[in-house]
Amino acid sequence: MVTSAVVNTYPLSSYTFGTKEPKMEKDTSVADRLARMKVNYMKEGMRTSVEGILLVERWFPKYHVRKYSVYYVFASTNEHVQEHNHPHILLLQIGNTFCKLPGGRLKPGENEIEGLKRKLSSKLAANSTGLQPDWQIGECVAIWWRPNFETIMYPYCPPHITKPKECKKLFLVHLSEREYFAVPKNLKLLAVPLFELYDNVQRYGPVISTIPQQLSRFQFNMIHS
Amino acid sequence: MVTSAVVNTYPLSSYTFGTKEPKMEKDTSVADRLARMKVNYMKEGMRTSVEGILLVERWFPKYHVRKYSVYYVFASTNEHVQEHNHPHILLLQIGNTFCKLPGGRLKPGENEIEGLKRKLSSKLAANSTGLQPDWQIGECVAIWWRPNFETIMYPYCPPHITKPKECKKLFLVHLSEREYFAVPKNLKLLAVPLFELYDNVQRYGPVISTIPQQLSRFQFNMIHS
Repeated sequence: MVTSAVVNTYPLSSYTFGTKEPKMEKDTSVADRLARMKVNYMKEGMRTSVEGILLVERWFPKYHVRKYSVYYVFASTNEHVQEHNHPHILLLQIGNTFCKLPGGRLKPGENEIEGLKRKLSSKLAANSTGLQPDWQIGECVAIWWRPNFETIMYPYCPPHITKPKECKKLFLVHLSEREYFAVPKNLKLLAVPLFELYDNVQRYGPVISTIPQQLSRFQFNMIHS
Repeated sequence: MVTSAVVNTYPLSSYTFGTKEPKMEKDTSVADRLARMKVNYMKEGMRTSVEGILLVERWFPKYHVRKYSVYYVFASTNEHVQEHNHPHILLLQIGNTFCKLPGGRLKPGENEIEGLKRKLSSKLAANSTGLQPDWQIGECVAIWWRPNFETIMYPYCPPHITKPKECKKLFLVHLSEREYFAVPKNLKLLAVPLFELYDNVQRYGPVISTIPQQLSRFQFNMIHS
């Protein structure tokens, strides 16, 4: 595990993006998802899920308009590096609205770091083992708890809750300078700047919208290649 | 500096609280405060301020009502330790509404850790040097930036801002099992549970209300004495 107060980041243009076969969601509704969670809880106990925060740098113009700040990552990405870069987080968009971090549920007894690498590869790596990104898992930056079979989560296990239903851990993922990502065809990969996430719980939900506060203690060291 | 994913906490009842002479605020209005900030910036450049997050554990009843969850710490504190403890943060209340973390502005060139210890003693220690708490400064958990001479701060330095006016750093402070705190007579010391701060920007502002998210990665190890 890599831990440091300084995080090296690289421009979005240093990465290459392709596509791969769709990765369909297991559930078609929130109700289905909570019902499946309940069934799994009866079999396996508390769910542990792990998600990765992948950072890239991207320039944008001074007088940006918020609605233009979210950047859809296409295979043809080739923008120039300029001044005024700002850290962006890679999010997967399902349909036209819902965004999520790459990651997922651990198998019972699975190691968190190995499980996160497996989930990141499932969501973002080419099927060829020779093209797997070098996933360097860094610090755990947040832990969220689901006290009941409901959508609401808290950044603490609420008092009087002795059997939480899910524990979700967010880890920083240190990307290498060059990587190839393969995005499932049914998902869109977005590079979203911290300033777009901040104070935007309506659009991104409580977990993703407070990532800027959780990353604030890190110093981002933008590497120009 | 102490850094660990596990934080030992002690019950509120293991600490003793007294009072000392008032510590008046330097400014009587927000406008005065921003004007003084501007004058100091011209002389000394960017302000760096440091604040401490002091944690205690406190029990509370199962069917709590939010308005009763904030606990005023009096000299006579002597409650019993029970189950269902939850981490509380010590805040200083000025008047009837405004709450702040103990801390303050560094002198030009002052070391962050030493400066925070000086500020914590100024706000919370008895005047006698023999009664100074053993301030063990832990991890930096958040950094906030003030881009202009305005009240708004961000958990990142906004792009295109080359000369921020203030950088505020929040540190975890690991308290020993027994300490004596002396609270200035014009201030009230509050023990506020994480669940009261969470999602409560209206009452506590953006910096204090997201402390639960920033502390979520720590495991609190409650020590019964």
